[in-house]
Amino acid sequence: MTVPSAARTSVTTGAIAGSSKVYVPVPEAPDLEVPLRRVNLTNGEHLDLYDTSGPYTDDTVTVDVVAGLPRTRDGWTRHEPVDGASTQLAWARAGIITDEMRFVAAREGVAPELVRDEVARGRAVIPANRNHPESEPMIIGKAFAVKVNANIGNSAVTSSIEEEVEKMVWAARWGADTLMDLSTGKDIHETREWIMRNSPIPVGTVPIYQALEKVKGDPAALTWEVYRDTVIEQCEQGVDYMTVHAGVLLRYVPLTAKRVTGIVSRGGSIMAAWCLAHHQESFLYTHFAELCEIFRRYDVTFSLGDGLRPGSIADANDEAQFAELRTLGELTRIAKSHGVQVMIEGPGHVPMHKIVENVRLEEELCEEAPFYTLGPLATDIAPAYDHITSAIGAAMIAQAGTAMLCYVTPKEHLGLPNRDDVKTGVITYKIAAHAADLAKEHPRAQERDDALSRARFEFRWHDQFALSLDPDTAREFHDETLPAEPAKTAHFCSMCGPKFCSMRISADVREYAEKNGLTTVDALEAGMAEKSEEFADAGGRVYLPVAPA
Amino acid sequence: MTVPSAARTSVTTGAIAGSSKVYVPVPEAPDLEVPLRRVNLTNGEHLDLYDTSGPYTDDTVTVDVVAGLPRTRDGWTRHEPVDGASTQLAWARAGIITDEMRFVAAREGVAPELVRDEVARGRAVIPANRNHPESEPMIIGKAFAVKVNANIGNSAVTSSIEEEVEKMVWAARWGADTLMDLSTGKDIHETREWIMRNSPIPVGTVPIYQALEKVKGDPAALTWEVYRDTVIEQCEQGVDYMTVHAGVLLRYVPLTAKRVTGIVSRGGSIMAAWCLAHHQESFLYTHFAELCEIFRRYDVTFSLGDGLRPGSIADANDEAQFAELRTLGELTRIAKSHGVQVMIEGPGHVPMHKIVENVRLEEELCEEAPFYTLGPLATDIAPAYDHITSAIGAAMIAQAGTAMLCYVTPKEHLGLPNRDDVKTGVITYKIAAHAADLAKEHPRAQERDDALSRARFEFRWHDQFALSLDPDTAREFHDETLPAEPAKTAHFCSMCGPKFCSMRISADVREYAEKNGLTTVDALEAGMAEKSEEFADAGGRVYLPVAPA
Repeated sequence: MTVPSAARTSVTTGAIAGSSKVYVPVPEAPDLEVPLRRVNLTNGEHLDLYDTSGPYTDDTVTVDVVAGLPRTRDGWTRHEPVDGASTQLAWARAGIITDEMRFVAAREGVAPELVRDEVARGRAVIPANRNHPESEPMIIGKAFAVKVNANIGNSAVTSSIEEEVEKMVWAARWGADTLMDLSTGKDIHETREWIMRNSPIPVGTVPIYQALEKVKGDPAALTWEVYRDTVIEQCEQGVDYMTVHAGVLLRYVPLTAKRVTGIVSRGGSIMAAWCLAHHQESFLYTHFAELCEIFRRYDVTFSLGDGLRPGSIADANDEAQFAELRTLGELTRIAKSHGVQVMIEGPGHVPMHKIVENVRLEEELCEEAPFYTLGPLATDIAPAYDHITSAIGAAMIAQAGTAMLCYVTPKEHLGLPNRDDVKTGVITYKIAAHAADLAKEHPRAQERDDALSRARFEFRWHDQFALSLDPDTAREFHDETLPAEPAKTAHFCSMCGPKFCSMRISADVREYAEKNGLTTVDALEAGMAEKSEEFADAGGRVYLPVAPA
Repeated sequence: MTVPSAARTSVTTGAIAGSSKVYVPVPEAPDLEVPLRRVNLTNGEHLDLYDTSGPYTDDTVTVDVVAGLPRTRDGWTRHEPVDGASTQLAWARAGIITDEMRFVAAREGVAPELVRDEVARGRAVIPANRNHPESEPMIIGKAFAVKVNANIGNSAVTSSIEEEVEKMVWAARWGADTLMDLSTGKDIHETREWIMRNSPIPVGTVPIYQALEKVKGDPAALTWEVYRDTVIEQCEQGVDYMTVHAGVLLRYVPLTAKRVTGIVSRGGSIMAAWCLAHHQESFLYTHFAELCEIFRRYDVTFSLGDGLRPGSIADANDEAQFAELRTLGELTRIAKSHGVQVMIEGPGHVPMHKIVENVRLEEELCEEAPFYTLGPLATDIAPAYDHITSAIGAAMIAQAGTAMLCYVTPKEHLGLPNRDDVKTGVITYKIAAHAADLAKEHPRAQERDDALSRARFEFRWHDQFALSLDPDTAREFHDETLPAEPAKTAHFCSMCGPKFCSMRISADVREYAEKNGLTTVDALEAGMAEKSEEFADAGGRVYLPVAPA
């Protein structure tokens, strides 16, 4: 491949502040090891965190984007096809626990048998094209931690290969579990090649975009053959999952006529235009079985696109949306009968009181295939803040059972995200995903909250930064008012100043209570009278000497 | 009062981009008029929005912060006391519809009788100290639009009077419904005076902060007399509502001993320290009836503080928190028996699955007094993004019935918010509040979403900006990639570029379908065969000539 200037410059590398990369062996698979981010605390403890960032955050690794990442998975056990399918689904059904399953089990901290079972039932997918051996396998399903996808990709008016490769590394650094390359501009194939060879996380695409480029942007000129060849080209490159808008049927198009915002999915609008132009059923639908045959050769996972998702609060949960969802259920069964893994894409724009209904219907109609939603935005009125309008909906829909959240950046509806927007989008969605893990009482989720809160209460500022989703910005904000190093151990911050720090007063109260055995109501009743004078004498202790700011 | 440099410089004035200030008469109160923000659309339509920004956004008004705002409410009808109470609650119970009630009814678009009834039942409050005649009355209650409070105020290590006055104007500009001045640094009285005389929105305080300053920061040195005199001083200045942590009882303090983050409320920790030091019950609790007598002379509203609110996910919904809530219920009944309006403050840090329980208990224990919550943060792990972690919780708790949301800024836990943080906090919380209004199917709420979505679908970019919560930033983001004026009417943006714009393709599809009567499934079945060829011929129309970018 040609070497873009990105290769000559460099992508972002280096450990996350306060952390280092460690690898732990995978039980019963001695050659495999799972990468973790180890947060090293100032009190001598450490906390290991799930780590999506790949070798880029390993200070001992020299990154060479021209060579690409090591093809680690080439050395893993490759099982024989089952009924013609070389997929995690087929193997799981056959009772085989693959190396990929063992890896994700260790990563999630669960038993490999749970992973196999969830994959076999179609309630979880492991997107892992055999031609993307650079990836570190991960699992998407409601029994596991909620995942986050980041969209990148150029358009006809912005960006370059260099920028896109850096955006991929950057998104993974901040916690993106998968990446979609949605390029619609120039050099689509080349851009994707650079991303694939350097991505430690699974990569998804929407093949109709490249197919449309091949027919010079005219939807009516699209054919099954052009589309099929594009899919094969992308399968060969190693794309792990593909969005296919096969549920946009000819008869559903009129259902969008009275909508406030019509069809807002690019793929959906392209297929609607094709169906009307030819007055034929969508070739994605009529050739769906053939598509399954291709996917199962590479173990590409379907992401069945919601081409008729609502693009506004007014259009949420309407007839068009749910008609398509029923068809996605039908397609789910076909894909699974071919041994192909499937997940289902979801909205969009949905007010809070209509969110749970989306999950309920998806699970009912699509046999609990993993739900993968874009937000949803809980209101339309805040362009420039749609990472936030959608994080509200995303947290709620994930709590209800959505397995993966597609991020939305502050630029949504206004322009293409730049590198800063990508980070903001990823961090915002890590918040939504984690909030849902907590609400689902997912094992391990609260460990990080507790560790950070203890650091906060004990004024271990460096630890509070290191444990946070974005240590750099947390520290930067603290530095704005109290930049000096002693402030990083001071028992207050600029919010309240030394005299009004509740945590500090509270710590003093606790110390006094513990010292005097007054940590229960009974003890208080019994012992406080004699102790109160003593505490009053020690009143000066409530405010420790002020540390230099 | 002394004139700080703020008075010599100026605060932010001028209409919100794309809008102008209009005033509409209040029915049955010919001398009163309600200010609105009128968004003037390019298609000749307009949308009137609830407007908190005061005269600062009226281009016809000359602002003079030394003179202060006009004392408009001095000219409104003043009714006689009822049973010694000159409060909206007392009048409402007596069947009197005050000018304040008529004003808020017109503002909310509801019948004055609904306002009177909700106030009489204690389910809503109108915080309107008679010594703050500059304010434009508003109502806080679950039957009305969800409100947003912004906290400002200096601390010992940051900020000045000038900055705080500008923060007040700035917060109101972006939609803050009330303001709390939480100053703990120097010039507390003077800072507040400047804020009061220039604030069009109700102002709240936490009097214990100033009282503590008077005793040189030693909680043990606090007395009821010092506190009482501080409260009277603030009542005289016109403070509309005050946070009183009267529910932190001596016997509850040991309940916090095993917590991860102890007591995180400043007022709560101060009172806990006082209780332990004296081994006496809180003077706020023992003198509560006396406090009610003071409040009812001015119609100051209680905001009963949750001094034992959880400061971490681990501490949510614990015994300490709910023990205090029960005491707040007891105090609510006492306050109401004195004719004083009451709202109840709520957490804090709460995982999503424990949020609804907070509202349910508050309503049960506190007779549905308006709930006023800080967030809650749905996770602890994202310092620097706590406006987002908390917006998730805020939207959910508001959907469940919370009447007012106290904003959280990106600086929470790290430092004092600056002017930019104040704006980010307010906009983020307007999103949460509006999302809840939509979810509650509040009348009028969806009008704005629909208007913005129609503008979006019709590529009226200027209208999309003008209708958004932050027109300046929306436009700025669009300008980043397509700054030229023609792009503001172009039928695409840089996200997808001209060929992949789903809205554009969708509009073309719709136009074709409507022109040919194909907007129903039946029509499609009947007429499509003959029409498909025609659409194919018109294929070029799917992509209109590209507008210059």
